[in-house]
Amino acid sequence: MIIIGERINASRPPIKKAIENKDKAFLQNEAKAQRDAGSTFLDLNCAISTENEVQDMEWLVETIEEVVSIPLCIDSPNPSAIASGVKKSRGNALINSITAEESRYKHIIPLATKYKCSVIALTMDSNGMPKTSLDRYEIAKGIYTLLKREGLQDEQIYFDPLVRPISSEPEQAMELISSIAKIKTLGNVKVITGISNVSYGLPKRSLINSTFLSMALCAGLDGALIDPLDKKSIQAIKTSEALLGRDKYCMNFIGAHRKGLI
Amino acid sequence: MIIIGERINASRPPIKKAIENKDKAFLQNEAKAQRDAGSTFLDLNCAISTENEVQDMEWLVETIEEVVSIPLCIDSPNPSAIASGVKKSRGNALINSITAEESRYKHIIPLATKYKCSVIALTMDSNGMPKTSLDRYEIAKGIYTLLKREGLQDEQIYFDPLVRPISSEPEQAMELISSIAKIKTLGNVKVITGISNVSYGLPKRSLINSTFLSMALCAGLDGALIDPLDKKSIQAIKTSEALLGRDKYCMNFIGAHRKGLI
Repeated sequence: MIIIGERINASRPPIKKAIENKDKAFLQNEAKAQRDAGSTFLDLNCAISTENEVQDMEWLVETIEEVVSIPLCIDSPNPSAIASGVKKSRGNALINSITAEESRYKHIIPLATKYKCSVIALTMDSNGMPKTSLDRYEIAKGIYTLLKREGLQDEQIYFDPLVRPISSEPEQAMELISSIAKIKTLGNVKVITGISNVSYGLPKRSLINSTFLSMALCAGLDGALIDPLDKKSIQAIKTSEALLGRDKYCMNFIGAHRKGLI
Repeated sequence: MIIIGERINASRPPIKKAIENKDKAFLQNEAKAQRDAGSTFLDLNCAISTENEVQDMEWLVETIEEVVSIPLCIDSPNPSAIASGVKKSRGNALINSITAEESRYKHIIPLATKYKCSVIALTMDSNGMPKTSLDRYEIAKGIYTLLKREGLQDEQIYFDPLVRPISSEPEQAMELISSIAKIKTLGNVKVITGISNVSYGLPKRSLINSTFLSMALCAGLDGALIDPLDKKSIQAIKTSEALLGRDKYCMNFIGAHRKGLI
């Protein structure tokens, strides 16, 4: 599965501080640890202040690419910060994210085309986040049509159907899970998602998150934004891959067990 | 979900010994503990010797019904032992099990009709256990046709699609999971299964079993034969029910957390 390591995000206080202090060693260690834990991409988010985000993103991309060679996931709601990160990166970046709102996609699509980036499209529009699997699919369909018209290949398109907390809306985990197969009828696109929102406001979040991840992988999810240093997440991934028949004779599972990773 | 408490099974040495010694207190405690842990049915298996099984089953049913009022699951490959248990029980018993083999169903179906029992039908025939989800479905369809012809209602019919170990056959967990929706197209029948075979031969069996249970519940499984005193199984059930939207505002989940059950 696709693992997008989510730790380098300025909403986490130690990361915010390291970006403010230009603490390269701290951030580079975060990057190496997530790479070693099996990340496919590393998410970089430095939205501390609108003022410095463009320069911070450029610095952060350069800092992380000094030590790891896996592709980056350039994460911002601000198209200028995304442009700065994409241009600085050595290529293969994944843009996180666009939505069905024109202000969120109009500067991003030409960038994706020019730099041959992949794009995460959140299934939301000017009405906000949808509640049903069908609404998620309808928004995804609109974005898919737009991206294809602009020349993107299916392989460049990742959808995130955006999970909502089950504490306030009990049906939302299953609405997301049902949306996965629907969205995948659009073409050879990928469906990924952030996991942790599902358990917002509840105890035992790690248990809920890892169970949800296993269920979603079983329903066809291609990948997730997770903390790859969280043992419960890695347990869920290794166990799910064995159960999904993607780990022949469970050799990876047994290897991870022997290394004490699960 | 339907929980069939599996602990009172003579293949477990302490249970075998308790049946041999007619240790009522030990067996009654096993029954009460499983009822208190949320069992819907209690499985009773006393297949120590062919010689005494008929009398042992009668004694075991009487012993367990002295202390619990939840229905029993009369478990034997021997039709005479099943008949003895069903006749002794106070009603609502679930018969475990028949197959598509005539020797396994011909004496059981009249018993189910007469005593209005439900029946677990294993999806196997004289060729043994099937490998694909389609083969599981085809066998289930044959048994369903037979049971309906003999007058059983859909509500009396439980199918067990029989999971095989992923250690030797990596695709078998997903073949079982795919069979669930197929079998449920037959009618308003239930699909239940034993969980633990999936992890045979592997380390961290409890982790594999609980992940598989969550995936299968997400794919429509109605219940499972489990040890309800195993914390990982109860964790998987409570967490899955919250994620499946069957636990409004997660009140049961939060309650189980407060009681230290998960």
